[in-house]
Amino acid sequence: MKWTKSFIYTLKEAPSDAEIASHKLMVRSGLIKKLAPGIYTYSPLGLRAIRKFENIVREEMNAVDSVELLMPMVQPAQVWEESGRWATSGDMGLLKFKNRNEQEFCLGPTHEEVITDFVKRDVKSYRDLPKSLYQIQTKYRDEIRPRFGLMRGREFIMKDAYSFDRDQQAAYVSYDKMYGAYRKIFSRLGADFRVVDADSGSIGGNKSNEFHILAESGEDHILAAEQGEFAANVEVCPAIDAEDPKSANEDLRPVEEFATPNLRTIADLAEFMGRPESELVKTLFFDAAASEKEFKPIAVLVRGSDELNLIKLKKHLDLPAEPRMLTDEEVRKVTGGASPGSCGPVGLSIPVYQDNSVAKMKNIVVGANKDDVHLKHVNQGRDFKVAATADLRFAKAGDKNPAGDGLLTSYRGIEVGHVFYLGTKYSKAMKADYLDENGKAQVMEMGCYGIGITRTVQAVVEQNHDADGIIWPLAIAPYAVHVCLLDAEDQTSSDLADQLTEKLEAVGLDVLVDDRKERPGVKFKDADLLGMPVRVVIGKRSLERGVVEVVDRKSREKSEVEPDKILGFIQDLLKG
Amino acid sequence: MKWTKSFIYTLKEAPSDAEIASHKLMVRSGLIKKLAPGIYTYSPLGLRAIRKFENIVREEMNAVDSVELLMPMVQPAQVWEESGRWATSGDMGLLKFKNRNEQEFCLGPTHEEVITDFVKRDVKSYRDLPKSLYQIQTKYRDEIRPRFGLMRGREFIMKDAYSFDRDQQAAYVSYDKMYGAYRKIFSRLGADFRVVDADSGSIGGNKSNEFHILAESGEDHILAAEQGEFAANVEVCPAIDAEDPKSANEDLRPVEEFATPNLRTIADLAEFMGRPESELVKTLFFDAAASEKEFKPIAVLVRGSDELNLIKLKKHLDLPAEPRMLTDEEVRKVTGGASPGSCGPVGLSIPVYQDNSVAKMKNIVVGANKDDVHLKHVNQGRDFKVAATADLRFAKAGDKNPAGDGLLTSYRGIEVGHVFYLGTKYSKAMKADYLDENGKAQVMEMGCYGIGITRTVQAVVEQNHDADGIIWPLAIAPYAVHVCLLDAEDQTSSDLADQLTEKLEAVGLDVLVDDRKERPGVKFKDADLLGMPVRVVIGKRSLERGVVEVVDRKSREKSEVEPDKILGFIQDLLKG
Repeated sequence: MKWTKSFIYTLKEAPSDAEIASHKLMVRSGLIKKLAPGIYTYSPLGLRAIRKFENIVREEMNAVDSVELLMPMVQPAQVWEESGRWATSGDMGLLKFKNRNEQEFCLGPTHEEVITDFVKRDVKSYRDLPKSLYQIQTKYRDEIRPRFGLMRGREFIMKDAYSFDRDQQAAYVSYDKMYGAYRKIFSRLGADFRVVDADSGSIGGNKSNEFHILAESGEDHILAAEQGEFAANVEVCPAIDAEDPKSANEDLRPVEEFATPNLRTIADLAEFMGRPESELVKTLFFDAAASEKEFKPIAVLVRGSDELNLIKLKKHLDLPAEPRMLTDEEVRKVTGGASPGSCGPVGLSIPVYQDNSVAKMKNIVVGANKDDVHLKHVNQGRDFKVAATADLRFAKAGDKNPAGDGLLTSYRGIEVGHVFYLGTKYSKAMKADYLDENGKAQVMEMGCYGIGITRTVQAVVEQNHDADGIIWPLAIAPYAVHVCLLDAEDQTSSDLADQLTEKLEAVGLDVLVDDRKERPGVKFKDADLLGMPVRVVIGKRSLERGVVEVVDRKSREKSEVEPDKILGFIQDLLKG
Repeated sequence: MKWTKSFIYTLKEAPSDAEIASHKLMVRSGLIKKLAPGIYTYSPLGLRAIRKFENIVREEMNAVDSVELLMPMVQPAQVWEESGRWATSGDMGLLKFKNRNEQEFCLGPTHEEVITDFVKRDVKSYRDLPKSLYQIQTKYRDEIRPRFGLMRGREFIMKDAYSFDRDQQAAYVSYDKMYGAYRKIFSRLGADFRVVDADSGSIGGNKSNEFHILAESGEDHILAAEQGEFAANVEVCPAIDAEDPKSANEDLRPVEEFATPNLRTIADLAEFMGRPESELVKTLFFDAAASEKEFKPIAVLVRGSDELNLIKLKKHLDLPAEPRMLTDEEVRKVTGGASPGSCGPVGLSIPVYQDNSVAKMKNIVVGANKDDVHLKHVNQGRDFKVAATADLRFAKAGDKNPAGDGLLTSYRGIEVGHVFYLGTKYSKAMKADYLDENGKAQVMEMGCYGIGITRTVQAVVEQNHDADGIIWPLAIAPYAVHVCLLDAEDQTSSDLADQLTEKLEAVGLDVLVDDRKERPGVKFKDADLLGMPVRVVIGKRSLERGVVEVVDRKSREKSEVEPDKILGFIQDLLKG
């Protein structure tokens, strides 16, 4: 492709709304252009990267016998009413509207309902199962605050796949096949990624993994083993202390009251006592009632240096939603009058839960349930009763790897893929049944599997760039080779560019030829910004010496190569 | 692809809402499945046909230097306000909605605004022009009464291209390139199609051609030359009599009144007089005022057998909209009291227009402007004055070819493509300027070019089917070859199917293998219904005789072929 025949316009300045490098670079290189907040046009160059990634996804989906179809983007309310999600879809950013005939529709950000409706109308027998279907489609989510370009856009391209199986065992097989396909997809991208255990959130189900491309700017916090495979989203990562607390082997000492005037926070207390926060204990208060009509106050103890994980607490208490923290007023009521900064477990008449890390601590420091007074040498069992001990805190770097040796390290990640075992959540609600060998109706078991196509492309840019621009991996580079034709009007130069293009395309390497009448400096700057893996510089003067220059975008290594050896040289470089 | 690994379900019965053959067949063969009126899921088989057609379109667009991009489906009101179409977009079925932040958006059925906005932000100089961009995208039009499956759906896939040029001459070059590409696209489909002159409707501009696939069920009426290239939509086709009227050479005779009691229509009058309708003249009355505030009654004379074409009348009178027919009350006012069935041009004080075919008629019969009375031997000039003579009627089969020898024939067509010269309608409104060689700002000249991808696929089915099912042309057949494996459990049979698949795929022919445990009759019926170009029947018994059966879907010709000669045989058949 010749630059002048395509539509490529680069910008010197990043737009003011671009906060992260990949957003800036994608706009500056003209890959995307904003039409409205979170809504972008994919330029010819941008679309090439997207299409290449789509094809990688397509190949790996097909390889695990998932079959491509295309479902409507506009979905009738009716199927969402069948699944029960029409009323509860607010959080998902479901954009609802009425058509001219006053019928209710939405722009579906996901297709569980539509695919279940599609499959159940044909699949009637165990002989038809398993089935796996996928689509690659433009979707819309009505994000309130779109940001980071394609990372958190309103309109975006997704690959979503759905599996239908006879029973849970078969559904797990489908899940594992898809999991394998995802590993291949992100490996083919050359991306540094982690597969993490994830909370399955509002989509339902109880087996779920996220695929994250690692990047400093990632919105997700991941903990991964220093050695081995284990990784988890911080929201669900088991927390295990690497060492016992210092006080674990102390003898129990008698409780002592001491004055802590105006000390409201753990940090205040730690400074006052000259002890690290990890040796202190926080007492937190929640309403553990399952409905708003009841009131079931509880206290939860966590180490001063830890953060309580509400998702874990919700799961431990088997609540429908995360429990609500009590107001100061309510805390005073349950503690007999103490403000939150001076509370503790001693003397409470409500259940007290504690995090695992508190369980081994001896002679702990807690509030006395009297303002400006704390207790030291408090011990569970002797001084207060524990309703249950459980993993209730957020794990953090330095904790023990829960799946093997070594410790956990902390990463930031961009969630680009997600595999879910759904069970019968949708198939039950929408009556997706089949007849088993005995002619008995059974509910299908489902899984759903998403990859954010456009988000992944940007995540790759986020992970692969330098100060001058993008460094595309070959797998999804808009073009493999970028030819800078320094003297576009020199016949020898442009003939060589044409021949080279033909040779490279014959071996499946696509070529962009910058044939503009621009200064070399402008062309080099744009080549760096656009970031194709290999740059070939064809100049009249170097041609007279019988060479062209080949530059590896990533290493910036330059080589002078004779024209008839370029093809082989580039192939070697790209195998690199 | 093995049938059991794909997702293919055929139906015995067509749905009750399917009126035309292609709609019935596409649903029965499971290519599409309705989710809501006008909204369909494309099944794996259906999507294969669509994708193949998309790729044909893509190749031919690329060949004329149009570059692919992808614009958003969700468009902000703002760009439509700039072009002035937000307020007037009712007819287009523009689906408008507000997002959560109460901002107005629409689902764009077309992208003139978005592309103009996209291009104007980068293209600043004459050096950047021409530019041609296209996308292949799912679009939505809020049809009030969707019908005929994908023919008149709400959600559909379009290819839309847009050209940007320096001036009209250059824009016409772009237009002609696109026109050529369209001819290639529909030729590659093997479709029987016509390119017709078209009214450019509400999109604006004044150079426009439609591409129609011919089919009895087509919604459009086309007139085409028996010999030669000429074809036009009946709405704009010039009407030229093949012969002069019988009365052309008669001597003028004196006017005579005669009684026509209770004769209200031309048919009544023709029967009463024993003369064909083509020898009589109708007088019609319209309001030719440009605004509703005025009242400018006119009379229009057309032959009794002809139909007045309001689009032609509107153009001739240079009106902003089609003129309104007068009410009976208004007719009585302008004729001095006569009902519409007894009116004529004699004695009127309003302008009288006549169609070309009336101009040569002598001694005509018209109403006397008295109820139940007509006049004969009326002659223009002598008995009434003519304000203008023009081509005002609909052309019809048997009229003279306006572009050469021979007559016109009538066809029904399905509009599948449309090329428009837009001029500066959008570029002017949206300030898409560039600087010319003299540094002077000029407005870009635009064209837009659409192909209904999903509609074309169904039109191909409409044109290519028989009583048993679809007859796909190779170009977009979901699979080229359909193997009926009669004894799926026979190892020799299934090995042969696998080998054959491998060989065919190696030469670019894709294969569907029906490996279900079904009776041969069921498999043959489904193969006929699905309509892949070539069927190969592999049966245990015929294999023992050393042959398989190869069936041409179109001719239904059957041949027995030795297994090692199948590849060559099929290649010859498909070239055939």
